[in-house]
Amino acid sequence: MAGINNVAIVGGTHGNEYSGIYLLRQWQKHAELIQRQSFETKLLMANQAAFQQNKRYVDSDLNRQFLPHLLADNSLQNTEQQRAKEINQQLGPRGQAGTDLIIDLHNTTSNMGPSLILLRSDEFNLRMAAYLKMKMPEAVIVMEDAIPLEQQPYLCAIAQQGVIVEIGPQPQSVLRHDVLMWMQTMTMHLLDYVHLANTQSLPELPKHIEAFSYTETLKLPEDEHGERLGMVHQRVQDRDFEPVKPGEPIIALFDGGEICWQGDYEAFPHFINEAAYYDNNLAMSMAKKITLTIP
Amino acid sequence: MAGINNVAIVGGTHGNEYSGIYLLRQWQKHAELIQRQSFETKLLMANQAAFQQNKRYVDSDLNRQFLPHLLADNSLQNTEQQRAKEINQQLGPRGQAGTDLIIDLHNTTSNMGPSLILLRSDEFNLRMAAYLKMKMPEAVIVMEDAIPLEQQPYLCAIAQQGVIVEIGPQPQSVLRHDVLMWMQTMTMHLLDYVHLANTQSLPELPKHIEAFSYTETLKLPEDEHGERLGMVHQRVQDRDFEPVKPGEPIIALFDGGEICWQGDYEAFPHFINEAAYYDNNLAMSMAKKITLTIP
Repeated sequence: MAGINNVAIVGGTHGNEYSGIYLLRQWQKHAELIQRQSFETKLLMANQAAFQQNKRYVDSDLNRQFLPHLLADNSLQNTEQQRAKEINQQLGPRGQAGTDLIIDLHNTTSNMGPSLILLRSDEFNLRMAAYLKMKMPEAVIVMEDAIPLEQQPYLCAIAQQGVIVEIGPQPQSVLRHDVLMWMQTMTMHLLDYVHLANTQSLPELPKHIEAFSYTETLKLPEDEHGERLGMVHQRVQDRDFEPVKPGEPIIALFDGGEICWQGDYEAFPHFINEAAYYDNNLAMSMAKKITLTIP
Repeated sequence: MAGINNVAIVGGTHGNEYSGIYLLRQWQKHAELIQRQSFETKLLMANQAAFQQNKRYVDSDLNRQFLPHLLADNSLQNTEQQRAKEINQQLGPRGQAGTDLIIDLHNTTSNMGPSLILLRSDEFNLRMAAYLKMKMPEAVIVMEDAIPLEQQPYLCAIAQQGVIVEIGPQPQSVLRHDVLMWMQTMTMHLLDYVHLANTQSLPELPKHIEAFSYTETLKLPEDEHGERLGMVHQRVQDRDFEPVKPGEPIIALFDGGEICWQGDYEAFPHFINEAAYYDNNLAMSMAKKITLTIP
């Protein structure tokens, strides 16, 4: 692909994920930190209304509003539906966006460490992942590329390239020093990568890197009235990206029983017990560990 | 004091502190778990409205509404002010309560482990603390007895005796298996204690136990516009009840600087970076480590 001329760093897509929101404030004061010679960087606070209410969102999850048919539907006018259309004007429009790369900054209550979620596995993304792992070995690469980009509902999908920086554990509405530093460090490496790629001056990259490829999402068990019957088992709590073998317990039932992992593969749970996913009664996401070959 | 005839276990005083709320549901189904021969136990879900909205409170913090002048003021009619008056009728009224002991179940996002907060240091409370430490050595005893009971604004202060079970780390609106088990275990020991004390059949208690005596609360630094200038330093994050010496860093400023502990005593922070305290811009509570002599 051609070089990257315009990068947008987005914070506050969820109003109670504080790291990106506070980093934006710092970078507004110290623009030199996010400037690189070969491209322009802009900053966007995505959901100020939700932040002011100290909530993930006011009416509906902003980060699920960016599918083309939703953006085109003018009857959708709640707080986040409106905001999505504004952002699509500012950074998009989707399909012919003025922004070449969106870096969307998120937190999770799960113990995922400094994770980078990639929505496609093209050369640009794979080499970005390899560069990041080289500079920040503790970074975790998560591939969510099974769904075609045009079906991704995320804010960062409106640009030609979009990535999600997803860092935890951090409770909602809390600012952790370690999590903030991870997010700052990862963002700096991503900007460096873009500049080095633009100027054909990347160092030699590893030929292969470890990553986790999303497979499926597990729900919490419910009774016939929709009341929850169990919770994430303490044997997996906080163990994001550690292997779970078929037959190992993953859910503890309130009545003392257990539910075991019934997949036919060794799974690597993540987003384990994420607070925001309780709305949809989700327990965790599963992945397979893979090796990416870097072009 | 005379024996305890009526105990109330309260959950959901804060609507996004899930452990007590889910334990209440279990105990409603299995009342035998909370029954003891020498007294009656009742269960109370304190703030159903806040739980339904998945928030700490709807209008104002319920656990600050129980001062006598607030309960007596009929002009105070927001959601929690009304609810406080109802609860005061059900479990109180304060000063002449039909309930002898309230056990109020709370969670914190801070890494406080299984903590028991005591609002007075009379024989009943001290012996309860000693019994608990004997049965559950990982329990932490926190004394908040500097303020006279009649000036305590807490729900549990409306009974003759009231204690706060405070267990973390647990993000708001999340249910952790380990935290739930700690809360269940501690509550069972407290009920056992009451029965054993009622029937003069307590085992021999330790003569001395370790505890932490609350001293003061530290704020996060702000600029002249009230904008936060820093966050809890990663050197103290998650280290509740570990010592901090005068001169050691406790706050990291966004501009790279540090604020150090300026007290003249070795302090034991707790409620470190508690999400709910951001409303009031609080960073942590401080305590001194003390030895309690058990009567």
